[in-house]
Amino acid sequence: MDRFDLVIRGGRVVTECDSMQADVGVRDGVVASLGRGLGRGRAEIDAAGRLVLPGGVDSHCHIEQLSASGIMNADDWESATRSAAAGATTTVIPFACQHRGGRLREVAAEYHALARQGALVDYALHLIVTDPTPECLQSDLPELVGTGHASIKVFMTYDAMRIPDEQLLDVLLCAREQGALVAVHAENHGMIDWMSRRLVDRGFTAPRYHALSHPRVSEREAFTRVIAMAELLDQPIMIFHVSTAEGVSVIREARGRGLKVWGETCPQYLFLTSADLDRPGLEGAKFCCSPPLRTESDQAALWRALELGDLQAVSSDHAPYSLDEHGKLHAGPSPNFKQIANGLPGLQWRMPLLFDAMVSKGRLGIHAFVRITASEPARLYGLADRKGSIAIGKDADLAIWNPDREVDLDDSLVLDQTRYNPYSGRRVRGWPEVVLSRGRTVIDKGELQRERGQGQFLARKAGPAAQATGDRSPEFDPERNFGADLY
Amino acid sequence: MDRFDLVIRGGRVVTECDSMQADVGVRDGVVASLGRGLGRGRAEIDAAGRLVLPGGVDSHCHIEQLSASGIMNADDWESATRSAAAGATTTVIPFACQHRGGRLREVAAEYHALARQGALVDYALHLIVTDPTPECLQSDLPELVGTGHASIKVFMTYDAMRIPDEQLLDVLLCAREQGALVAVHAENHGMIDWMSRRLVDRGFTAPRYHALSHPRVSEREAFTRVIAMAELLDQPIMIFHVSTAEGVSVIREARGRGLKVWGETCPQYLFLTSADLDRPGLEGAKFCCSPPLRTESDQAALWRALELGDLQAVSSDHAPYSLDEHGKLHAGPSPNFKQIANGLPGLQWRMPLLFDAMVSKGRLGIHAFVRITASEPARLYGLADRKGSIAIGKDADLAIWNPDREVDLDDSLVLDQTRYNPYSGRRVRGWPEVVLSRGRTVIDKGELQRERGQGQFLARKAGPAAQATGDRSPEFDPERNFGADLY
Amino acid sequence: MDRFDLVIRGGRVVTECDSMQADVGVRDGVVASLGRGLGRGRAEIDAAGRLVLPGGVDSHCHIEQLSASGIMNADDWESATRSAAAGATTTVIPFACQHRGGRLREVAAEYHALARQGALVDYALHLIVTDPTPECLQSDLPELVGTGHASIKVFMTYDAMRIPDEQLLDVLLCAREQGALVAVHAENHGMIDWMSRRLVDRGFTAPRYHALSHPRVSEREAFTRVIAMAELLDQPIMIFHVSTAEGVSVIREARGRGLKVWGETCPQYLFLTSADLDRPGLEGAKFCCSPPLRTESDQAALWRALELGDLQAVSSDHAPYSLDEHGKLHAGPSPNFKQIANGLPGLQWRMPLLFDAMVSKGRLGIHAFVRITASEPARLYGLADRKGSIAIGKDADLAIWNPDREVDLDDSLVLDQTRYNPYSGRRVRGWPEVVLSRGRTVIDKGELQRERGQGQFLARKAGPAAQATGDRSPEFDPERNFGADLY
Amino acid sequence: MDRFDLVIRGGRVVTECDSMQADVGVRDGVVASLGRGLGRGRAEIDAAGRLVLPGGVDSHCHIEQLSASGIMNADDWESATRSAAAGATTTVIPFACQHRGGRLREVAAEYHALARQGALVDYALHLIVTDPTPECLQSDLPELVGTGHASIKVFMTYDAMRIPDEQLLDVLLCAREQGALVAVHAENHGMIDWMSRRLVDRGFTAPRYHALSHPRVSEREAFTRVIAMAELLDQPIMIFHVSTAEGVSVIREARGRGLKVWGETCPQYLFLTSADLDRPGLEGAKFCCSPPLRTESDQAALWRALELGDLQAVSSDHAPYSLDEHGKLHAGPSPNFKQIANGLPGLQWRMPLLFDAMVSKGRLGIHAFVRITASEPARLYGLADRKGSIAIGKDADLAIWNPDREVDLDDSLVLDQTRYNPYSGRRVRGWPEVVLSRGRTVIDKGELQRERGQGQFLARKAGPAAQATGDRSPEFDPERNFGADLY
Repeated sequence: MDRFDLVIRGGRVVTECDSMQADVGVRDGVVASLGRGLGRGRAEIDAAGRLVLPGGVDSHCHIEQLSASGIMNADDWESATRSAAAGATTTVIPFACQHRGGRLREVAAEYHALARQGALVDYALHLIVTDPTPECLQSDLPELVGTGHASIKVFMTYDAMRIPDEQLLDVLLCAREQGALVAVHAENHGMIDWMSRRLVDRGFTAPRYHALSHPRVSEREAFTRVIAMAELLDQPIMIFHVSTAEGVSVIREARGRGLKVWGETCPQYLFLTSADLDRPGLEGAKFCCSPPLRTESDQAALWRALELGDLQAVSSDHAPYSLDEHGKLHAGPSPNFKQIANGLPGLQWRMPLLFDAMVSKGRLGIHAFVRITASEPARLYGLADRKGSIAIGKDADLAIWNPDREVDLDDSLVLDQTRYNPYSGRRVRGWPEVVLSRGRTVIDKGELQRERGQGQFLARKAGPAAQATGDRSPEFDPERNFGADLY
Repeated sequence: MDRFDLVIRGGRVVTECDSMQADVGVRDGVVASLGRGLGRGRAEIDAAGRLVLPGGVDSHCHIEQLSASGIMNADDWESATRSAAAGATTTVIPFACQHRGGRLREVAAEYHALARQGALVDYALHLIVTDPTPECLQSDLPELVGTGHASIKVFMTYDAMRIPDEQLLDVLLCAREQGALVAVHAENHGMIDWMSRRLVDRGFTAPRYHALSHPRVSEREAFTRVIAMAELLDQPIMIFHVSTAEGVSVIREARGRGLKVWGETCPQYLFLTSADLDRPGLEGAKFCCSPPLRTESDQAALWRALELGDLQAVSSDHAPYSLDEHGKLHAGPSPNFKQIANGLPGLQWRMPLLFDAMVSKGRLGIHAFVRITASEPARLYGLADRKGSIAIGKDADLAIWNPDREVDLDDSLVLDQTRYNPYSGRRVRGWPEVVLSRGRTVIDKGELQRERGQGQFLARKAGPAAQATGDRSPEFDPERNFGADLY
Repeated sequence: MDRFDLVIRGGRVVTECDSMQADVGVRDGVVASLGRGLGRGRAEIDAAGRLVLPGGVDSHCHIEQLSASGIMNADDWESATRSAAAGATTTVIPFACQHRGGRLREVAAEYHALARQGALVDYALHLIVTDPTPECLQSDLPELVGTGHASIKVFMTYDAMRIPDEQLLDVLLCAREQGALVAVHAENHGMIDWMSRRLVDRGFTAPRYHALSHPRVSEREAFTRVIAMAELLDQPIMIFHVSTAEGVSVIREARGRGLKVWGETCPQYLFLTSADLDRPGLEGAKFCCSPPLRTESDQAALWRALELGDLQAVSSDHAPYSLDEHGKLHAGPSPNFKQIANGLPGLQWRMPLLFDAMVSKGRLGIHAFVRITASEPARLYGLADRKGSIAIGKDADLAIWNPDREVDLDDSLVLDQTRYNPYSGRRVRGWPEVVLSRGRTVIDKGELQRERGQGQFLARKAGPAAQATGDRSPEFDPERNFGADLY
Repeated sequence: MDRFDLVIRGGRVVTECDSMQADVGVRDGVVASLGRGLGRGRAEIDAAGRLVLPGGVDSHCHIEQLSASGIMNADDWESATRSAAAGATTTVIPFACQHRGGRLREVAAEYHALARQGALVDYALHLIVTDPTPECLQSDLPELVGTGHASIKVFMTYDAMRIPDEQLLDVLLCAREQGALVAVHAENHGMIDWMSRRLVDRGFTAPRYHALSHPRVSEREAFTRVIAMAELLDQPIMIFHVSTAEGVSVIREARGRGLKVWGETCPQYLFLTSADLDRPGLEGAKFCCSPPLRTESDQAALWRALELGDLQAVSSDHAPYSLDEHGKLHAGPSPNFKQIANGLPGLQWRMPLLFDAMVSKGRLGIHAFVRITASEPARLYGLADRKGSIAIGKDADLAIWNPDREVDLDDSLVLDQTRYNPYSGRRVRGWPEVVLSRGRTVIDKGELQRERGQGQFLARKAGPAAQATGDRSPEFDPERNFGADLY
C-alpha cells in the first residue's frame, strides 16, 4: 500500500447520510481511504475539532457572461471561482449562452476557452438556448450534449432571451431525445412587461417597484405552463430560483402526480425580502434580481420545501454587477428599476449563510446542508461519479469547516468583483477555513493557494434526472395514437 | 283591469325555482298575471298537459360572422334565429367581431344593421377584441359598453384572433373600468400550433388528428393563465366552452378561493366524443370544433360541474358551416384537419338535447334545465330584468313543451343553413311545440309565424357578474403600494 | 272566478330566483294569483314600498326538549313559535328526541301532542336517535319515516346522546332503506372530553375555556369520519352547525367528489366570535353553545361557503336557556364551563340578522337570502311542495318586510323565554312587519294575531336530498362482491 | 495501527448516498476503515463482484408475542432472528406488549428475558400500550423510555388492543413529554366491526371477505383522525402498514402542512393483492392480515410514496402463524375470516423481494433500497449512531449480496416456524450470501454460524424524529391561552 499524498487527520467527516470521526487519506486527487489512525501522508492537515465536508456544487451561476440587457458580468472566471472557493464551493456550473442569431457551438467554444484560462476549480457548463433554429436543434445541441453539456436552460421572460411556447416545446423534445435536463427561468413575461410599463409610465421607478413589477401570480402561472409542456412530452425539468409559496405548491402538486419536476431556490430568497429593495438611495439597486425578493412567509415556504424535498438544491444564481456605471447603473446614475442590471453576487456567501442557518442554528441539520449544497446538485446534473460527497474514489473536493468560528459579513471580505456583500451586517457562525480541489489546497485561511486555469471541465453524461419516465401523455404517445413516432 | 292579450291556459309553469299549475296572462308583451282561472285573453293557447318554460338564452353563438380562417358562417340572422326559435331559444348573444386593423365601433355598427334586418328573436351582442389599440381601449370600448354591449370576448389561440398576455391584461383592465364581463377562448396556442405542425408534417391529417392537436393540458394551462391575470386585476371572467375534467378542476379551485370565475360548456362536449371525429370519409369534418370533442369521462366531469355550479351555463357555440366548398371544405375536397372550418351548429339542438337528458332522463332535473339554459345566462350577461324566467313584468318569452313527444333527430329537421344535424340518429323525448317572443308566436308546431326583423336589440347594463370584488391582489392595489392609482 | 280571501297589494314580491312588482292574491290559504291590478280581496294589505318574501323555514331548533344535560329548554311550543313568527319564520323543524332506553315511537307521540296544543306556525319533526336498538331500527324508524318524519339526527358527541361508529352505520343504513336524510352533530368526542377534563382539573373553568375545549380539529376530524361512513353506504347526510373554515373545506372536497353532503351554519357562527365568551361576569355563559363560537376568519369562510353553495342553509339551532338557575346556571351560580347549559336563542333573530347583512348591507343579495332562509331548507327537508317560495298553489306563508326600518336589537324585544338577546347592541336595517301563515296574519307590527294550536304538522315524503346516488363504494356493493344483498 | 479483525475485500460498498469500490476493515465489531488496498485482516472475505450493503433494520415485527386473538406467534426469538439474518436483516424492533390489566414494566422485563436468551442479532423494543392507566403513564412509560424504549405503539382497532381517542391523547401527550415516537395501527374500528358482523351473519365467511370487512375508507378515516390528534398536541407519529392510495394522500397532505407524520408500508402491500386471499381452499388464510391486501393501483401509489419520501420505510410486520390448529386455524378447520389469525411472515423475505424490485428491476434504485430498508428506519427509531449505514465507527452489520444470483422462492427455504412462504413461485435476482452482525458472521451461504443469545439490546435515546416541532395548535398552546401549562 502506497503512502497517501495527503491525510486530513482527526476531523469529523460528514456526508449527506453519514457522520464519522475519521481521517481522510487522499491519493492522486481522490479519496483513497477513510478510517481511524490512517498511515502518514506526504502532507497532513490537522482537522481536530473541525468538520470535513464535501466541497459545494453551485449549479447555477453566471460567469463572464453578457446579461439580458447586454452588459458584461463583473466577474471573469478567475474572480468568480476565487470567490466560490472562498465560500467552500469547489464545482461551478455556469452557462454558455447563445444570443439570438448566434451559433450555440461557437458560443460554447468561446466559453470553454475563457474557462480553461481562468478557472480555479472544476466546472461544467449549461447551455442557454435563445434561438432554437433547426441547426441548433439538429446539429449543435446533439453535438454539445454528446460532448458533456447535458443540461439546457431556457427563459420564459426577458425580451432578449425568452422563447415562445412553440420553441420551448422544440427544446424540450430535443432534450428528451438527447437525454439532457432542461432548466427554466419561469415567469410570465406578459404580466411583468405590462406591470413594468404601467409603473414606469406613472413614475414609480424606484428599485422597490421592481418587486411589484413581477407579480406573484406570474411565477405560479409560468411554473404551471412549463410543467404542462413538460408533462405533454414527458421531459424532466428543473425550475430555477423558486421564490414564492405558490410556486412551491405548483411543484409539490406536480411531483405528487409523479412528474419529474425539480426545483431550486437561492440564498437571496431565503435570507432577504423585498424590504431590502427599499433601502435608501441607490442601495436598493444592489437587491434587484429576477424573480424579485419576496416575503418572510415565502421564506418559510421555501425552507419547508427544502425539508420535504420539493426543492432539491440551493444555488447562488451568482449574477455579479458592481454598483457603478459598469454594472448596476450602466444606464446612468438615476435608473428606473427596469434599467438596473439584475442579479446578486452569491458564490462566496451561499454556503456560509446556509451553514449558519442549517447547522449552527439547527434548521434541517448538517446532513441536509450537505445534500442541498453538494450531493443533490451533483446527482441532478450528472456529476455524482466524482463530486458532491466524500467516498472512496471520489474527487477530494473538500472543505474543512470551523463550526465555532464567527464571522461578521461585510464588504471587506468580498473576493468577487462586485465589491459589495448583500449580506453585510450579519454575523454567521461556522466558516470554511481550508478548501481543497482534487486534493490540492485552493484556499487556506482566506488565502488563495492556486493558480488560475487549474480547474477542469467536467463532461457530464445525461444523469438519471434527465431521463424521461416513459409515461408520455396520451396525446403524445405515438404508438397509441399514430402508429408512428412523432419525435 | 284590462283583458289579457293572450292567456296560456292550464299548463305547468316551471321556473328555475318553482313549479306551479297556473295560467299565464300576457299583456303588452310581458307576463301580466299568473294564477288559476285567469280571465279571458284576446287569444288563448291551451297548454293542458304541457310545460310552460322560459325561452332559452343562448349566450354564445356565431351568426353571419367571418371565421378565424376568413370564411363566412353559413347562417345569416334570419336562418340562425329561425333555428334558435325552433329549438326553444328566444334570446341570442352572438358577436360583433373586430378583425385586426379594423375599428370595433364600425364592426358593431355593421352587425347591428344586419341584425336589425334579420333577427326573428331578441338579441344582445358580445364584442370580440383582436386588436386592442389605444383607440379601441380608450374610445370604442367605453362607448360600446356604454351603449349596452357589456361583454367582451378575447382569444388566446387562433393566429388571426389571439392577443398576447400583455394585451389580454389591457382588455381585462379596460373591462374592469367599464364594468364589462370578459369571456375567453382559453387554449394554449403554442402547444396547439406545435402539435398541429408535427402532425400535418408527418401526414397525420385526418379529422381525428384534430383532437390530438389540442392536447388536454393546453386547456388546463390556458385556464390557469387567464385566471392568474384576472386574479391580478380582480376582473371577473367567463371561460367559454370548457371541455375537459382538468379544466373543470382549475375553475373549481379558483372559485373556491373566492375568485369571480364562471364557465360554460356546450352540447357537443356533453353529447359527443372524439370518436365522432373518426367517422368514415368526410363525416368527421362535421365534428371539428375547438376545443375538440373529448371523452366520456370528461362528459361526466362536465355534468358534475353543472350540478355543483362550477359551470353555470350551456351555450351552443353555434358555428355553422355546410359540409361543402363554401364551408367545412373551403380549402378543397381533401383538407387536412387544420384546413377544416371549425364549429358545429347547435342553436336548434341545444335545448331539446338538454331537455331529454335533464328532464326526461332525469339528470339534474327540470329546474336545473331552466337555470342552465335560460335563467343563469340571463343573469350573468345582464338580461335578467327582461329574460330568463317567468315572472310578472318580464318579457313573455316562453316555450310550451310537450314532455311526452318523442322526436327522431335527423337532417330533415334542420332549419339552419349547415343542412346537417350533428346529433342525427338520436331520439329525444320532450319537444317545444309553441315558442313565443314577447307574447307573439314565433314557432307553432314547427311552422314559422313571424317576419324577420322583429327581434329587438337588448342593451345591457353591466351585470353583477361583471363587478370586480374589490379584493385586488396585493401587487396591484394602488392604495397600499403606490399612493396613486395604476388604472 | 271567486274573489280572493286576501290581496297583498303593491309590494315587491321576491323569490329565490325572481323579483317582481306584483299583487298577491290568496284564497284558501294558498297563493292563488300573482299579477298587477288583481281584483279585490275580502281583506287587503297595503304593501307599497314593502318586500313580500316567503316566510322562513328554520330547519334546526330545539323546542320543549330535554337537553343533553337533562334540563328542559326554556321555550314551549307557544313561546318558541311566537318568537319564530316575530322573526319572519313560518315553518319550524324541531326534534323528537329519543333518550337512551326510551322508545322513539312514544317520544314522537308526546312531541306531537305538545306541538298540537302549542304551535302557532306549521312544523315538521326530525327524529333524534340515541339508542338504535333493533326495535328502533326495524320498527319505530320505518313507521315514523312512513308517517312523515323523513329526517333523523344523530350525535357524535355528548355523553348522553352520542352513538359509536357502529351504531352510526346502523342508522345510516336504516335511513338509506327508508329514504330519510341523516343530520349529524359532528365533533370528535374524545378530543372534547380530554380537553375539557384537563382544563377543568387545572382550574380553567371560565366560559371562555369552553371554546378551547372544542378544538378546531375536532370538527374537521368528525366531518371527515361521518362523511367516510356516508360514502361507504352511499347515504346522503346533512352536517349541522358548521363552525370552522376547515370544516367547510372538508365538505367542499366531499361535494367535489360527487358525494351527497350538505351543510348548514347558524347566525351565531356568522355574527359572533369566541371573544363573546369572554365577556365579564356571567355574560359569557349566554354564548356557550356547541360547537363553540370561533373567529372572524371562520365567519368569512362560512359566508363564502354559503355563496358557493357548499353550505345550503342557515338555521337558528335555537336552544333557549335563561341565564338563571332554571337554565344556563342550573348547576349553581358559579358553574364551570362544562356545567353551563349549551345553546343560544335564535328563532327570532335569524332572519332579521341575515336580512340586514345580506340585503341591506348587500352580502350575497336578496335572492340568496330567500334561498338560504327558506327555499333551500324547504327543498332539502321535503317541504317544497308547500313551503319556501311564493308560487301559485303554495301555502301563503309570507313575510312583509319594511326594508328601510331600522331596529335596535335589545332584550326588550325578546319574545322567547330566555329573556336575553345575544345580539343586543346591534342595529339592523330591514324588519318584518306582517307575517302570515297560510294566509292568516300571525304577527302584525309586533302584535300576535293568532291563537296557539293553529300550526299544522307537515308530514314529509323523503325529499330528493335523501335519495342515495346508487354509487355505493366498491366494498359495499352487493352485486359486485357478494352475489347477494348486504342490506 | 493495528491489524483488522476482518477485511471484506474488493466489494462494491453502497450506502444510502454513496457507492464505492472499497475494502471494509473491521475492528472490535465496528467499521474501522474504508479504502482501496487495506492491510490484512485476521480474517478476510472475498467480495469481488459482490455488493457490500448495510444490514437491514426491520422496525416492525412480532416475535414470541401473544396475538390480539390470544394465541402465540409461531416464532421464538431464535427462529425469528435466524430468518431475519437469512434475509439480510441484522436489527429487529419487535414489541413488548401490555395486555389490559397488566403492567407494562413487567411485560418489558419478560420480553427482555426471552430476547436475551434467543436473539441472534441485535434488537430494540417498541412498547405496546393497551391500558394507559395513571401508573402506566406516570411511572412505567417514563421509566421504560428512560431505559431505551423510545417508541410506543397503539391500536385504533382490535377489540383486545384498541384504546379510545381520549386515551390515545393521553399516550400522545405522555410521549411528547418523554420524547418518544408514537406508532399507530390506524383503522376505523367501527366500520370494520360493522362490516365483519354483517358479512359473517350473512354467511360470507371465506378469507376473501376479510378484505371487504376492512373498507378502504376505514384507513383514510383513521389516518385523518390520529393525525388530527397528533396535530393538536404537536406530537410526531409513525403510521404503520399503509395499504391504500387514499392513506398515502392523507399523509402527503399532512406532511405538506409541516406536520411530523411518517409512514411505512410492508412487502405484502407492495407485492401481493386481495386476489391472493381468494386462492383455493385454505390457501387464502395464509394472506389474512390487517389492514388487508389491496389492489395493484394501491401498490403503484405506495411505490410513488416511497419515491417521494411520503413513506419512509418498508418493514416486514412479521406476524408468523403456521397454517394449522396452532396458528391460522386455531379456531378450527373451517374458520370464518374473523377467526383466522392475522399476519404474514416476512423477516426473511423483505429485503430479497425489495432488492429484486428496486435494484435488479431498477425501481427507485439501490440507494433508495438502502435508505428504505436500513438507513431511514435506523434514523427514525434512534439507532443511527450504530446501525443503518456503513461508516467509520458504526457497527459492522453488513450483508454481502450477490447481485446476479437468482433464487426461486418456495417453502423449502423457510427458516421461520410458519413453514410457508407467501411469495412462493417467484424468482428473485440478488441474494444475500454472507450476513455479519458486529463483524461476526451470522449467515454464510444459508448456514447459521452463530449461537442464540448473541444479539444485544439496543437502548435508544429519543431520536430527532420524536421531537415535537414546538408549533402546537393554538388551542393547546398554554402560554397563549392559559398562562399556565396544560401538560
